[in-house]
Amino acid sequence: MKYSPHIDALIEQLQILPGVGPRSAQRMAFSLLQAERASGQKLATRIESAMTHVGHCSVCRNYAEGELCGICSNPKRQVSEQICVVESPADVAAIESTAQFKGRYFVLMGHLSPLDGLGPKEIGLDKLETMLKSQAVSELILATNPTVEGEATAFYIADIAKDLAIKVSRIAHGVPLGGELDSVDGTTLSHSFIGRQSVD
Amino acid sequence: MKYSPHIDALIEQLQILPGVGPRSAQRMAFSLLQAERASGQKLATRIESAMTHVGHCSVCRNYAEGELCGICSNPKRQVSEQICVVESPADVAAIESTAQFKGRYFVLMGHLSPLDGLGPKEIGLDKLETMLKSQAVSELILATNPTVEGEATAFYIADIAKDLAIKVSRIAHGVPLGGELDSVDGTTLSHSFIGRQSVD
Repeated sequence: MKYSPHIDALIEQLQILPGVGPRSAQRMAFSLLQAERASGQKLATRIESAMTHVGHCSVCRNYAEGELCGICSNPKRQVSEQICVVESPADVAAIESTAQFKGRYFVLMGHLSPLDGLGPKEIGLDKLETMLKSQAVSELILATNPTVEGEATAFYIADIAKDLAIKVSRIAHGVPLGGELDSVDGTTLSHSFIGRQSVD
Repeated sequence: MKYSPHIDALIEQLQILPGVGPRSAQRMAFSLLQAERASGQKLATRIESAMTHVGHCSVCRNYAEGELCGICSNPKRQVSEQICVVESPADVAAIESTAQFKGRYFVLMGHLSPLDGLGPKEIGLDKLETMLKSQAVSELILATNPTVEGEATAFYIADIAKDLAIKVSRIAHGVPLGGELDSVDGTTLSHSFIGRQSVD
């Protein structure tokens, strides 16, 4: 025991948060104890509420507090024939913030990773396949992460869609805007050459 | 609303933690939702328990779950005539981990900072003075932080102790062990010259 039982227990449990080690957990615990107790209690309540009330949307697998998420329950988007496949709810938020895409999403909640026991079923591809078969889908946009696993997942999903004769696209990879060429890594630069577009 | 009401509320409240901004709060919230819900619920419970059960030791002002903290309730330490004054409970833990000091502590829970409304009474100096007057104290060791406020607080406390004819000392400041001279800042280096000790 380093401090007292409740403080030690709190410091230990705070370390389940990403990027929080023993030292930051200690700092957080003391900060919570030193500030108004009410705000710490509010944090406890909000964690508890989120753990209890947040489930998954029955259509797109994104986080939702009811049967459907905000996007799937929006009539304007329900009629869209474009579906964008992403790995996580944070990706949905990132894409939504651009206001570029007005279609629906399908959230894998991960990527194919057989070694971790994540096969097609675990990332909901059976559900996606049913959706593609039963609904009018004009285009499937693959926006998984440009990592080895994300690319593999995208290829796998592309195969499913091609078998169903549905148009599939992959978001463009290349030099980010505002970046300088010489600070971009080689792989990205290669991609930006492979994916070059003609200037009309 | 960016995600859903409960998630937004959680992300907002996580930002009361030190060093946590909107992005890390979002990462933490999603990580809590994605992991086993039980571990998030455990975190909520532990925050709640700590907020409810952790108070202050009636003797030294350190965090305690009962009337006295672990150190003040230890009979071996109760008889010690040395009192070490520190700013925070984390400082107590740091000193305890050296196993160098076997006396008692007095935790200010801050430092003198009149602009923030922290006067002598707010950092418990009335209590410390009563303690110095009523108990046998052979030495008061000032281990406040080597910052402007910490130094000012140390001077203030030293004055109180001197009036009561109690021996006061300040922990040594100088070049940290394992450090290299040329990477040490000038103020620290000056201190290490002023505080030089004769080699017998």
